[in-house]
Amino acid sequence: MKILLVGGTGTIGKRIAWRLQDKHEIITAGTKSGDVQFDMTTIRSIEELFEKIGKVDAIVIAAGGAPMAPVKDLSEEHFYQGFRSKMMGQINLALIGQKFLNSGGSITLTSGILAEDPIHMGAVLSTVNGAVNGFVIGAAGEMFQQGVRINVISPGIVEDSMDAIGGYFPGHNPVPMDKVVNAYIKSIEGIITGQIIKVY
Amino acid sequence: MKILLVGGTGTIGKRIAWRLQDKHEIITAGTKSGDVQFDMTTIRSIEELFEKIGKVDAIVIAAGGAPMAPVKDLSEEHFYQGFRSKMMGQINLALIGQKFLNSGGSITLTSGILAEDPIHMGAVLSTVNGAVNGFVIGAAGEMFQQGVRINVISPGIVEDSMDAIGGYFPGHNPVPMDKVVNAYIKSIEGIITGQIIKVY
Repeated sequence: MKILLVGGTGTIGKRIAWRLQDKHEIITAGTKSGDVQFDMTTIRSIEELFEKIGKVDAIVIAAGGAPMAPVKDLSEEHFYQGFRSKMMGQINLALIGQKFLNSGGSITLTSGILAEDPIHMGAVLSTVNGAVNGFVIGAAGEMFQQGVRINVISPGIVEDSMDAIGGYFPGHNPVPMDKVVNAYIKSIEGIITGQIIKVY
Repeated sequence: MKILLVGGTGTIGKRIAWRLQDKHEIITAGTKSGDVQFDMTTIRSIEELFEKIGKVDAIVIAAGGAPMAPVKDLSEEHFYQGFRSKMMGQINLALIGQKFLNSGGSITLTSGILAEDPIHMGAVLSTVNGAVNGFVIGAAGEMFQQGVRINVISPGIVEDSMDAIGGYFPGHNPVPMDKVVNAYIKSIEGIITGQIIKVY
């Protein structure tokens, strides 16, 4: 398979790339790193990305962020930062990418545990993750009619991130990276669609 | 209790108003109807609404929409229409409203069944509903620390809407309006917080 992996040099993305690279042709894309650079927050840049790489068999996104702040200090702008990146960035990649998928292709997005298991200062991420899950639930049926599968991986805090951000997740069980990567493999190489694959 | 009811003349909102009006002081607000008019898609209009009515004991929102369209035709603009209205409209009302709630006050938002049970052309609504659910999950803990409760009602297709839009919901079980209104009453007069109250 020819696979576009957005965020292919990130904490999770690079591990997905390692697992896929022996069996598949991987094109990594990111803001500053990877085989191709682009800006996932703008439509035109996403279109140029696909015009550059052409049709693919799978689109995998392990990228996108959202700001953390206390609820009492949250403004609309905090939310729109998250919307532009992890929410609409992924949704736009799916909407535009569906036209650049070979028959039988798949789309795999990333949300996260905060959609249902919150942490302090994480309300924007909970919102964004809930939206991405909702999009996959809502879009899967019509994408299926076009021969396209779509799933979303919702990981807990991964072991490799514990040193950097584990303090924000008191009492959370770190998830082995192999289990997280397996979820992406299941979505890419398997047959499921419309699933929120929870890894926690 | 002094209760702000946004969307108080809508299909669900007017039934909530009927049930609450004997026990509470209700202020209905809407775009064109209700005791006070305002635009839930702009921050300044929401601030003016609260400056006009002052502190309240409960904020209830049964308003906000999102466009319906086939996934293959969806553009970013379809999503932003839903974001401005049912998503950020409700979130901004909660964020600004938390400063205008009396001690022990509550916020009750509205999402809907499409977050987990999709229909044709409903992907934007699935996304928006998922986001609103995620926001409530994410914000409840910190709001609790400030003495504020927040819940979201997620109704299925209500009986009163079957004639108008039932055709979009094949095989869905229409929900009696009394059960939906009960969910709002539970959130307003009860003690729960951080709950997605599913009525379907």
